[in-house]
Formats: sequence, C-alpha cells, structure tokens
Amino acid sequence: MQYRKRDEPVNYLEEVYRRIFPQDTAVRDQAAGRLAQLTMPHWALGDLMDLAVDLAGMTRSLRPPVDRKKIVVMVGDHGVTSEGVSRYPREVTAQMVHNFVNGGAGINALARQAGAEVVVADIGAAADLSDLARAGKIIVRKIGSGTANMASGPAMSRTHAVLSVEAGIEIAESLAPGTDVFGTGDMGIGNTTPSSAIAAVLSGLDVSLLTGKGTGLDDSQLLHKIAVIQQAIEVNQPDPKDPMDVLAKVGGFEIGAIAGLILGAAAHRKPVVVDGFISTAGALIAYGLEPFVRDYIICSHRSVEPGHRFMHERLGLKPLLDLHLRLGEGTGAALAMNLVDAAVRVLTEVATFNEAGVAGGPSST
Amino acid sequence: MQYRKRDEPVNYLEEVYRRIFPQDTAVRDQAAGRLAQLTMPHWALGDLMDLAVDLAGMTRSLRPPVDRKKIVVMVGDHGVTSEGVSRYPREVTAQMVHNFVNGGAGINALARQAGAEVVVADIGAAADLSDLARAGKIIVRKIGSGTANMASGPAMSRTHAVLSVEAGIEIAESLAPGTDVFGTGDMGIGNTTPSSAIAAVLSGLDVSLLTGKGTGLDDSQLLHKIAVIQQAIEVNQPDPKDPMDVLAKVGGFEIGAIAGLILGAAAHRKPVVVDGFISTAGALIAYGLEPFVRDYIICSHRSVEPGHRFMHERLGLKPLLDLHLRLGEGTGAALAMNLVDAAVRVLTEVATFNEAGVAGGPSST
Repeated sequence: MQYRKRDEPVNYLEEVYRRIFPQDTAVRDQAAGRLAQLTMPHWALGDLMDLAVDLAGMTRSLRPPVDRKKIVVMVGDHGVTSEGVSRYPREVTAQMVHNFVNGGAGINALARQAGAEVVVADIGAAADLSDLARAGKIIVRKIGSGTANMASGPAMSRTHAVLSVEAGIEIAESLAPGTDVFGTGDMGIGNTTPSSAIAAVLSGLDVSLLTGKGTGLDDSQLLHKIAVIQQAIEVNQPDPKDPMDVLAKVGGFEIGAIAGLILGAAAHRKPVVVDGFISTAGALIAYGLEPFVRDYIICSHRSVEPGHRFMHERLGLKPLLDLHLRLGEGTGAALAMNLVDAAVRVLTEVATFNEAGVAGGPSST
Repeated sequence: MQYRKRDEPVNYLEEVYRRIFPQDTAVRDQAAGRLAQLTMPHWALGDLMDLAVDLAGMTRSLRPPVDRKKIVVMVGDHGVTSEGVSRYPREVTAQMVHNFVNGGAGINALARQAGAEVVVADIGAAADLSDLARAGKIIVRKIGSGTANMASGPAMSRTHAVLSVEAGIEIAESLAPGTDVFGTGDMGIGNTTPSSAIAAVLSGLDVSLLTGKGTGLDDSQLLHKIAVIQQAIEVNQPDPKDPMDVLAKVGGFEIGAIAGLILGAAAHRKPVVVDGFISTAGALIAYGLEPFVRDYIICSHRSVEPGHRFMHERLGLKPLLDLHLRLGEGTGAALAMNLVDAAVRVLTEVATFNEAGVAGGPSST
C-alpha cells in the first residue's frame, strides 16, 4: 500500500473510490433489531430479511427508498466474434438496441413488470447508433466500435479500459439524483467469452469450468470457445492482481461500463442489482478495483452459465433467484427488483409483537 | 375403478372432480411456439417460459389473465399443540387473524407488493371470531374449534374432513368470478405437525426425514415432535390410498380447506399459487383426491422445512423460489405472483424476431 501525499492530484477513479464506504453497521443493527420483533417466528422470511438489513445498511435508512428503479443496459461488440464463439452474427447487437428502444425486448417487458425504467448506453457497439442518440433514445459514450480480437492481442488499450469504467461511473453520476435502485444489464454478441476469460484470470480456475454454451453453442463449438479463451489468456498474460489490466486485455467496453456503474452506484450509496454472467464479470472488475463496492451489490440470480457460481463465490455473495435464465440485458435484475420491494415492505409495513398485541415475541420467551 | 350409472346422484365433491380437466395442450403448443420465436436465444428465460406455457394451458389463453389476485389464508387450530409441538401458544392463531385484518402481518405487506388481495377464512380456529365475520373482515366457515389431539385419536371425523374440503371449494367458487389467480395461505399454531404427518403417510417416507423445527424448536423438542407424529400415525393407522382418511386422522381443518381451494381453482381453470409446507400438504391431499389438480398448481417456493422437497417430488412439480422462508400465511405465494406477472409479460409483450427485424431467429438458422 502506498499513501498519497495530501496535496497530490487525485485522478477521477481514485476520487470515486474515496467516496465508497462500507454499509452503515449501526443502521444495519437497527433494522435487524426491528425485524427480530416482527409478528412472525424469528427471521421467518429468511433471505428477504437479510436483504432488508443490507438495504438499510446501504441507504442509511430504516425506510430505504426503492421506488425509482433504473436498469442500465450497457452495449458493446467484441472482436473475438470473428473466431466463431457465438451462434448469432455481430449485427444482432445493434438490432437489439433498436428492439430495446422500441420496447420489444425481454428487458422491456420485465422492467415494466418491476416498475423500472430501461436506459440504454452505447459504450462500444460496432454500429453507428448516433441517430438514436440524437433522438434522445439512448446514451452514447462510445469508446470504440467493438473491441479488438483478444485471441490475437489485447481487446483494448489500458486507456480505453479506464475510459469505459469512467463512462459507467459518469452514467451512474448523471442518473443518481433520479434513481433509488440501479440495475445492470448488457447487450453484446459474444460477450460470454470475455466474461469467462475475466472469471478465469481473476479466480485462477480452469477456463473449462467457467465457460458455457452462451446463447446456444453445441458441444464442439463449446470446446472451440474454451480453446479461444485459453489462447486469449496465453497471448495477453493479463495480471490477475491488476483488474484494469484484465479488463483491457480480455474484457469488453460494456463490461468496463458495468463495473463503472457499480462503482458509481456505490459512491452514491445506492443499491445496485447485478444481473447475470456478463454483469457479474463487470462486478468482479469493480470489486477488484475497490472491494467495498460489494457492500452495495445485490446478486439477482444464478444463470445456467456454469462459471456464474464461481463468480458469486469470489464475490462472497449469494444470488436471490435460480430460474435457469441465460438472457442477460438486465432481465434477472428486473425480476429481483420485486424482491427488493418486498424486503422493504417487510421492514416498513409489518407490525411488531408489541404493536399488534400478539403473544410470543422475543421479549416474552 | 368403478363406473357410476348415468342417473345415479352425484355428491358435491364428485361434481367438482368432474369439472377438472388437464391443461389444454393445443394452447400450450401455441404459447411455446410463440416463445420460441421471441427476440432472445432459445428459451433464454428458462423457468419463466415454462411458467408462461403452463399459464396458457391452464387458462386456455395466449393472454392469460392474471391481474386480479387473491390469497386466501385458511385458519385452523390443532389439538396436538397440547403435546408441546410448537413454541407458540395456541392463542396466537386468533391474535394473528386480528393482525391480518389490521394489515400488519407479513402476508399483508407482501400481498400489497404483489398487488394481491388477502382473504382470511376461519375454518377451525379455537376462538370466537364471529365479530370479525359480522364486520365483513373475514369469512367464517368454521367446522370446529380446533381439531382433536391426533396423538390419541383422529384429528377429526371423516364427515368433518369432507366439510373442510367443501368449505375450501365453496370459498373458491364464491371468489372465482372476481379472481384470475388464487394463492393459498395458512395460519394455525402447530400446523407443521399435521403437515409432516400427511407427507409421511402419503409418501411412505420416515417421519424424521419430513419433520423440521417449525417456528423454532430446539433439537430435543424436534425429537419430541417426531415422536408425537409417529405416535399419531400408529394410533390412527391412516390409509395412504384414501386421502380423505389421511386428512381426517392426521390433518387439520385449514389443510382440508386449502385442498378444497386448490380443487375449486382447478375446476374454474384458474392458476393457484401454492405457498409453503402447510399449503403443500393441502396440495398433496387435493392431488390424492383428483390428480388433475396438479395441472393448475404453481409451487411458489421451497421452505426450510426439510420435508418440503419430498412433497414437491411427490407432486412432480418444481418450486420457483428458494429464499429460506418458513412463515406460511401465503407469503411465498405472494412473492411468486410477481413471477406469474413476469411470465405473462414475456408471453404477451416481447417481440418475435420477425416483428422486430432481428437476425438469427429459429427460422433463419
């Protein structure tokens, strides 16, 4: 550890890290104290009560505000698709952005159910989406038109990795005043490949353990995908102790922006509901950059990608749902936002034994 | 199997069984056909898409109506509490009914979150709740003031078992015109004990596998509870092939009414979201009486009661959530209703590849 001199200039990322504090333990204790007095057997709503304590600790409130929800879908393309690691063509990324804008995608339907707004941000699509930006339909913070092919060199420069994280932070900063709960989402054909690579480098586990069939590969295509990821790691030698190096060499623009969104949410003490495999890769980068972000992360679900559970183990967080999802876009985050609402209802609307005049509370036994 | 002569009088229960048909396979196929065309990798929303197909098959509609939700909390007391199988006094049952009516219980908070109405029905509380009934706050269909102690004889007569099931059916019948989706709930101090007994008799599995700590027993109290259940089964010798006999000898009034609610929902082709351990015991009774009810059951969650997964295995249904809940009241059903809404949104609001002009649909590969 190096200590910085007081009057040394601080860069933007470090300024953000300085604003990320752990959850407030005093408020956590107050929330847990109330929950233990509710008219029900002790902690009978299980994970929902744990979540309520977390929300109180994150927001420093016994009435955590959660009404205004925004799911930010970060978009990026991947040079590694030229290796044949996805069954969809790269053009689908931009086509899906139009689908998001028109309200016809999975995330639109599930965000409406959850009462969340969908915000789409182009960080690195290999298509010109400026017409949608001019029409105010999407945010454009484009770092590049898709990453380079990580199987033959770094996916991006270190500078661009920093820019992608900063783009995510700035999006969080701009949305924070109108947002109580953030959700992460992603769109990028081929992006399970960099996500598995990130997980492999940061965990030291074997690539084959962490790699799945993505949008629908067959068995031989899966073996090819594993070989491509192994090659990318061998060619680039990312440094597991330097998450920005990992992001640059085997990551993606949208993954960097997801990491930034999580950092920005944490700096604003806002809960951030992390979606599936790609979003959790972004969370691992954010956690590597500043471990206290974990105090603001809610893991929405465990996907069918086999590496996802290793990611959750590394974060030390348990996902709320396990519904065999493998879509991304923020769909799992949207579903889990219902549980965020439910947890707050439990904390704020259920009577205590004393309030309700019910026998058998903790104080009476 | 016996065939009834055409002009033989039919009793009420048999008339209801005759109205329970399997899901409509043609509508299921149409729903699955549309879901396979949605702008996402094949079946990428996993269990949510299976649920959407079920909802279409139950309701015979590609736009399954799910807006009007009612969670019916069936209330009953249990003579077996005199054996010391619960850590709460029996008076808590009626106190909690007042808490429900005042909107202060867990189920009230979670039903509000899910947009569901809570209906409370006294089937067998050991308390006079007629003031609440006169005020229109609860339904009273009381069969008795608590069951008898099943450790020394049958919990109720066979006639009363039939009446409790019929009460549940009639409640479903009366609510059906204003209800799209039913949820089950329970309140009754001591009712994990009959629920474990029902599971043991119907499954043939050992009582110790199926019995848990309920609202919070310690290890020695758990052993005592297991012994009481074993004694109840030995004393009563319920016939596993006769679910009404099982309900009468080791069941409960509210458990019979839950079975009836499920039968009534199925007869009206309405989805019924089944809550936790006690509700699933009711579902096992309903399934024993008429196996096709299973086509209308949505299992909301797996509770911490160890016997719950054996119940789900016997029903052949997978629960949606696993959040370490152990409250009952219908709280798990309320949480799962969000997923019912989400499933319908996916079926009705997501664009197909053709509609959205996105490449890579099933027809293009």
